[in-house]
Amino acid sequence: MIKHLKDLRQDTVSEFRGGKGELQITHFLEVEKDEFNAKGRLFAKNVLKPGASIGLHEHIGDTETYVILSGEGVVNDNGDAKPVKVGDVIITKNGEKHSIENTGVFDLEFLALILFD
Amino acid sequence: MIKHLKDLRQDTVSEFRGGKGELQITHFLEVEKDEFNAKGRLFAKNVLKPGASIGLHEHIGDTETYVILSGEGVVNDNGDAKPVKVGDVIITKNGEKHSIENTGVFDLEFLALILFD
Repeated sequence: MIKHLKDLRQDTVSEFRGGKGELQITHFLEVEKDEFNAKGRLFAKNVLKPGASIGLHEHIGDTETYVILSGEGVVNDNGDAKPVKVGDVIITKNGEKHSIENTGVFDLEFLALILFD
Repeated sequence: MIKHLKDLRQDTVSEFRGGKGELQITHFLEVEKDEFNAKGRLFAKNVLKPGASIGLHEHIGDTETYVILSGEGVVNDNGDAKPVKVGDVIITKNGEKHSIENTGVFDLEFLALILFD
């Protein structure tokens, strides 16, 4: 089955998890369509404009992986603030925390995959 | 935990699944490092050069999702040959078949996610 970009669910969320500005989410798979085989709940491309962020939050019962596709930012990786750039993979396991902020001048684009524990 | 691009496992496979040329795989998560919570076995970026392909193969016991990042190609989607381009999402469920070929002049880059049934 092929879904085209125009058919993908897109969400825009303000101040997500206490962050700044807007987060744009393009969903590759949808829980509501039973496309995860009950193994996870998010497979998406996220976009943060310059200055926008996802606030610090804890993952309970799942693991989230971010993969930076373009742009520059800072990730709080379970307590440590670290710069991130294209190709970086950030893994936040059950019980760990993360946040991400676009500190660059272009959009910060990154994949997000959440798999259950 | 942050992994940088240079630290990611990269595989180059020739004539994968009976396809043509080389497939380059950059692994975001690794089964061997227990990074899938036993929910899947592949989360990677695949690259096919012009003319290269992954041959037609069946998925048994899992679902694979491709997401086209750049380039142009043709996917055999469980029997139907269809052109694909950036933003297209191809879902191949348990018992279904797919192949993918780079029919363009630039690299065909796509995500691949395999979740167990």
